[in-house]
Amino acid sequence: MGKTSTANLLLPFLFVLFSSSPPLITTEASKLGSFRFAPRFFGRFAANADLNNLQTHKSLKIQYETRYFTQVLDHFSFSNLPTFQQRYLINTDHWLGPNSMAPIFLYCGNEGDIEWFAVNTGFVWEIAPLFNAMVVFPEHRYYGKSMPFGSRDSAYKNAASLSYLTAEQALADFAALITDLKRNMSAEACPVVLFGGSYGGMLAAWMRIKYPHIAIGALASSAPILQFENIVPPETFYDIVSNDFRRESVSCFNTIKKSWDAIEAEGQTEEGLLRLTEEFHLCRNLRSTQDLEDWLESAYSYLAMVDYPYPSDFMMPLPGNPIKEVCRKIDSFPDGTSTLERIFAGVSVYYNYTGVVDCFDLGESNQDLGADGWDWQACTEMVMPMSSSQSTSMFTAYDFNYSSYQDECFKHFGIKPRSRWITTEFGGHNLLTDLKTFGSNIIFSNGLLDPWSGGGVLQNVSETITALVTKEGAHHIDLRPSIDEDPDWLVEQRASEVKLITGWINKYYQERSVLFSSI
Amino acid sequence: MGKTSTANLLLPFLFVLFSSSPPLITTEASKLGSFRFAPRFFGRFAANADLNNLQTHKSLKIQYETRYFTQVLDHFSFSNLPTFQQRYLINTDHWLGPNSMAPIFLYCGNEGDIEWFAVNTGFVWEIAPLFNAMVVFPEHRYYGKSMPFGSRDSAYKNAASLSYLTAEQALADFAALITDLKRNMSAEACPVVLFGGSYGGMLAAWMRIKYPHIAIGALASSAPILQFENIVPPETFYDIVSNDFRRESVSCFNTIKKSWDAIEAEGQTEEGLLRLTEEFHLCRNLRSTQDLEDWLESAYSYLAMVDYPYPSDFMMPLPGNPIKEVCRKIDSFPDGTSTLERIFAGVSVYYNYTGVVDCFDLGESNQDLGADGWDWQACTEMVMPMSSSQSTSMFTAYDFNYSSYQDECFKHFGIKPRSRWITTEFGGHNLLTDLKTFGSNIIFSNGLLDPWSGGGVLQNVSETITALVTKEGAHHIDLRPSIDEDPDWLVEQRASEVKLITGWINKYYQERSVLFSSI
Repeated sequence: MGKTSTANLLLPFLFVLFSSSPPLITTEASKLGSFRFAPRFFGRFAANADLNNLQTHKSLKIQYETRYFTQVLDHFSFSNLPTFQQRYLINTDHWLGPNSMAPIFLYCGNEGDIEWFAVNTGFVWEIAPLFNAMVVFPEHRYYGKSMPFGSRDSAYKNAASLSYLTAEQALADFAALITDLKRNMSAEACPVVLFGGSYGGMLAAWMRIKYPHIAIGALASSAPILQFENIVPPETFYDIVSNDFRRESVSCFNTIKKSWDAIEAEGQTEEGLLRLTEEFHLCRNLRSTQDLEDWLESAYSYLAMVDYPYPSDFMMPLPGNPIKEVCRKIDSFPDGTSTLERIFAGVSVYYNYTGVVDCFDLGESNQDLGADGWDWQACTEMVMPMSSSQSTSMFTAYDFNYSSYQDECFKHFGIKPRSRWITTEFGGHNLLTDLKTFGSNIIFSNGLLDPWSGGGVLQNVSETITALVTKEGAHHIDLRPSIDEDPDWLVEQRASEVKLITGWINKYYQERSVLFSSI
Repeated sequence: MGKTSTANLLLPFLFVLFSSSPPLITTEASKLGSFRFAPRFFGRFAANADLNNLQTHKSLKIQYETRYFTQVLDHFSFSNLPTFQQRYLINTDHWLGPNSMAPIFLYCGNEGDIEWFAVNTGFVWEIAPLFNAMVVFPEHRYYGKSMPFGSRDSAYKNAASLSYLTAEQALADFAALITDLKRNMSAEACPVVLFGGSYGGMLAAWMRIKYPHIAIGALASSAPILQFENIVPPETFYDIVSNDFRRESVSCFNTIKKSWDAIEAEGQTEEGLLRLTEEFHLCRNLRSTQDLEDWLESAYSYLAMVDYPYPSDFMMPLPGNPIKEVCRKIDSFPDGTSTLERIFAGVSVYYNYTGVVDCFDLGESNQDLGADGWDWQACTEMVMPMSSSQSTSMFTAYDFNYSSYQDECFKHFGIKPRSRWITTEFGGHNLLTDLKTFGSNIIFSNGLLDPWSGGGVLQNVSETITALVTKEGAHHIDLRPSIDEDPDWLVEQRASEVKLITGWINKYYQERSVLFSSI
């Protein structure tokens, strides 16, 4: 494989835009399908979430009322735009009400159906009764049922209809909703605590930075707010994925690392492509090695994100310590077994743990988790440069090329990214130093197995801005419902979070009683 | 005068929309001319600023280079909109450069031509050399020469073209400009200090709240950030104006208070209107008492704003302590002199201090100071409710009526105000308590003669958020160029400001050197 072609090879998370489901935005360019795309938090190849059957954790009952709130489409201009209905889930069962200044727990909905996040954020529901707290889960605009212009098709019609899908607008939605909700409930004095995981964690942290008067604190779990403009090295993400495999087995790491050349070699001929189709049990004939590489790379990255110590079904049904299991499979064959046979066995742990899949459809994508919306966000403001290092990564080497990234975004959406806007708006380059002087009451929690932890805040910033880092943690594991199998470090992490949140609320009450008594 | 008609009477600052110059937005409703409008910082009846002859303070040399920066029109969406050229003034003569981490002084341009603010903000130019600081005065979008859509006419064409005239967009302009400027000068590490007076002071304070990573501190002079949603009583503004007159002379206050009825009585007949035209030396025949009342009320309010202890020409050429002078005139006549004769003599101090005016044109308005733009802002997000108390004000009683305010805005601009947005976006109701926990490095300076001080922050919020209140100060007098006649309290106030700013910068350097040495 020549150097030039290597540089053009796939990276996991750098997805082919719209290669499977026909895009609502149709341009000539969008048919090219050769664009290595932006990283995603949720998987293109993840199983479709069955929202009717999500409450799998026996002990926890997640109940809520579904409501809608009329939102302004562009909070920051006065264009004559239609309003839209933002969905939110609310539970007041344990709330002691305004007279007790009982807290409000607000989850910052991220890029998907809010019901999916609600049931995957058991922690909030579990601790709400301890705090006599109301629970509110607002949905992020342009996801789930919170569609501007009346329908998903209309909202995703073109760049003009999508243009109000930005993080700033989403934050303003949260601010407007909670302000109105509090006013209607005479709950203006009730402290709001924010929660969020992944992009939702970024929103929670940014909400605390941009709307400090709206909420008294934020638990930002697995929030890579430093993953912009090379604030952290662009190789970080794939280095962490790679290290997750290497720490389980060096031979496993090496097998994966050399598999890309093996796939490329096979893919040189039509017969080779057929053999790959067969070897990987694909439903349809493979037309390019790229598709297969995408599929594999995606699996490895998501495995790193959900490398939880117990069986889970966050994105796919998986065993505990799934990377260990993948590597056990890869390493389990006798000497002389082909690399690709090992790789297929390994990746089957991810794509077919339950053993029910007859053949794999590489085109399968999960629309429900809002992949299209995230593509738009990645092509506008969420530009997270990612490279893959020749020496330290198990993936093929790749240098992020902003110019071609920009070109592809323009081809697909007719839009140019504003790659420096996020750090202008929210800070970034000196954020940790800056936060010392103006920030307070944020928990940045990160598990070091999670590749997104590389862009997270991993050190205490001040007395009130705390980093909770767990060596064995993966993507926002602390927000998941607690179960008997939780390791001690996770139980302790959640206890620390409860303690810190208690401290914020008590300090708030203290300040208010001083105020009240001095009137 | 019956109660009903009293409630409908004019308030100063509640101006007739577009009564004089033809509006660019023309609707049937705009011809009605009976709308009592929102308060303004700068005068509709103020003299047109002569930008070619502004540098009147002999000792201070204000020099700058004029540059333009390409700005995004809607920072918070990705609509396909044209960029525009934002003007900014810059002086680097005294700047020691990036190696010394020399500071950057940024004035937050407000609703008018930036050159006018530059020459009226002598304080910044005077202290910049002491700090080896660069000085930057960016112009506020939609004012001066910073027009979206290529020209003033196009920018002010209709509600659609005006829709991006908001405070949030202006703040984002400042953030984008200064970030780019610093990057181009390799000055990323240079601390930025914000300055602003009046609405510009609000922008400086809000900038510190919303973009704490952009600037290390802000001097917000005469910034009524609490003048929203009845956070302060809506009577505050006119009560302060009235008290400014009463403290000079109770009889003067009483004369003004009873003048409204006298005018109304005269205005009942055509002959009476003619007599008023003559008595007040008007160029054109008076058609309604409303126009005259507007003109008088405007004078009293601006007199309160610019009640400086020395002669000035901020909005009009005026003597020192102009309210004292007005009252001296009003009180100077022998018993039996008519109320209206006294009033005319008094108001002539404001409108004709130089004695060159032959007749007064009530239609005169100052386009250069951006009155139209401010009308739009007042009809969208800058909704500052103002009432006039029967018992404490020298003006006619008036209760702010949001519903009719909203109706009139809709009639004139085809837009509905979002009256609760400012406090949602920037905080308000508990801002002082909230600022304690998340804010730092703001000076709120206010002079108590200034009617806008009623909506200002008048008490220290924390160790680093300081209120500097001067009993004898008027509208952002501290930002004006220093002169020999400055009273001691003003010299001391400015010294305190310099000391506080020095503290911010030193602390910033201290934190950085600790950082540098620990690497």
